[in-house]
Amino acid sequence: MTAETMAEEKARASSWFRALRDEIVAAFEGIEASHAGPGAAGGPGAFDVRETVRTAQDGSDAGGGLMSVMRGGRVFEKVGVNVSTVYGALGEAAQTAMAARKGLPGMAEDPRFWASGISLVAHMQNPHVPAVHMNTRMFWTPHGWWFGGGADLNPCLDYAEDTADFHAVLERHCAPHGQDLYPRYKAWADEYFYIPHRGRARGVGGIFYDDHCSGDWDADFALTQDVGRAFLAAYLPLVARRRDTPWTAEDREAQLVHRGLYAEYNLVYDRGTKFGLSTGHDPDAVLMSLPPLAKWI
Amino acid sequence: MTAETMAEEKARASSWFRALRDEIVAAFEGIEASHAGPGAAGGPGAFDVRETVRTAQDGSDAGGGLMSVMRGGRVFEKVGVNVSTVYGALGEAAQTAMAARKGLPGMAEDPRFWASGISLVAHMQNPHVPAVHMNTRMFWTPHGWWFGGGADLNPCLDYAEDTADFHAVLERHCAPHGQDLYPRYKAWADEYFYIPHRGRARGVGGIFYDDHCSGDWDADFALTQDVGRAFLAAYLPLVARRRDTPWTAEDREAQLVHRGLYAEYNLVYDRGTKFGLSTGHDPDAVLMSLPPLAKWI
Repeated sequence: MTAETMAEEKARASSWFRALRDEIVAAFEGIEASHAGPGAAGGPGAFDVRETVRTAQDGSDAGGGLMSVMRGGRVFEKVGVNVSTVYGALGEAAQTAMAARKGLPGMAEDPRFWASGISLVAHMQNPHVPAVHMNTRMFWTPHGWWFGGGADLNPCLDYAEDTADFHAVLERHCAPHGQDLYPRYKAWADEYFYIPHRGRARGVGGIFYDDHCSGDWDADFALTQDVGRAFLAAYLPLVARRRDTPWTAEDREAQLVHRGLYAEYNLVYDRGTKFGLSTGHDPDAVLMSLPPLAKWI
Repeated sequence: MTAETMAEEKARASSWFRALRDEIVAAFEGIEASHAGPGAAGGPGAFDVRETVRTAQDGSDAGGGLMSVMRGGRVFEKVGVNVSTVYGALGEAAQTAMAARKGLPGMAEDPRFWASGISLVAHMQNPHVPAVHMNTRMFWTPHGWWFGGGADLNPCLDYAEDTADFHAVLERHCAPHGQDLYPRYKAWADEYFYIPHRGRARGVGGIFYDDHCSGDWDADFALTQDVGRAFLAAYLPLVARRRDTPWTAEDREAQLVHRGLYAEYNLVYDRGTKFGLSTGHDPDAVLMSLPPLAKWI
């Protein structure tokens, strides 16, 4: 923990999140361009990119980001990739939530914060291709800094092979940072992505972590970078494997109902969504994760 | 306020909610049966009725209700009418929320509660016909009792005439109980059905009240009965007025997007939804309010 400004670390982290965003966006554009399976006649989807602005309650600048959304692609029905760097003073509610979780004495006296990260949610046209979520971020306050993030797979039609492969890639990318990391962060994802009122997980898990601070910023940043790198390595093979499989009306129905579950999770429980909605971030950017079409029967 | 069991009052309230449910269900079946406008060829929709069970954490009986849902009707795309009577001990989180709102000293020592009510949400096939919500309930604890409820209109295509007529019927039914009631409860609905993160109301309002306890149970119950009676009187004319109007693909799109907003409101803010999900009620009954199909662009 440190009370320094950490200007250089912040710049390195936010640049990295932006570079990762560029790499992911390019990879997804490549998938759209190369698609020759179901829906190929429609032509490749393109990202709609716009800057987002966060405004403090007193109207002052509080950061912003870049929201990139592709809608109605041939492979991606809706995918959003957000990067943002936001700062200001934490409101009372956010202070209380953070104090309950972390302690952080001093937050009430000096409630400044800075946060930068990338978040991504993909809802796919083909019900055989799993939906996916990835997010990594650095959080700073004068009283401490930490990293958080993770990725989880949300298939509506389960393939044990896909689940195993996705987890194996995440595990491999965590391994250099400590053998205990993957099992701990997998267990955390199982707990975090659980929907209590439904008594079930929202998907087949992945990894999740928050408040990660070993005291060694470079080491912790390196882990977060590897989690970011793991994403494309874990997900692209699943898209390649499933995107040409034909689907039925029943598969589509299962997909729409599963998306309802996903929306329930995000709106009722997701920490990032709650934080974004309650601290004045652009609601369209915060809620970019919501499915293009969802069903509740 | 009273610490009595109020067995008779509870029985009268829950019987009334059940009778109101029967009347509404019959009226909606009548609308389906008589429909000759767009979609008439499909045949009338029917309610799927099932008992719901609420189980306490220790597995003991904690009440239940009757959930009636019509899906894919000719006029109603999805409508749910729930009645439930639930009881037990309030959990710590619910106690805290209630204490923050009402005080209610003694709740920690004797956390028993009893609640009975009716709730209804209708999502319509025709985008010209507004979606609607109605809910009334009696809540009892050893430390006090109160009524709550309301109704609000959620059109995706606004007709000033419909809004004015809906409000006028609510006002007329509130009037015998005090001239100040409608303006106060209309203002409360404007505040309650507001979506802070979108900076807008979810619909065109109606009335909302909670913690209504004048000390005269009969008078307060009579008000709640009149709010219940107001519902069909206010809503049926709007259905009759709009159900035969043809609609376009753009109207349907506006409807699906508006329903996304409705789902956001219910999952993020709605007090009854939060209470239901966090106290172990049947999630399908609590989330019956969610739209059959919704879109986030």
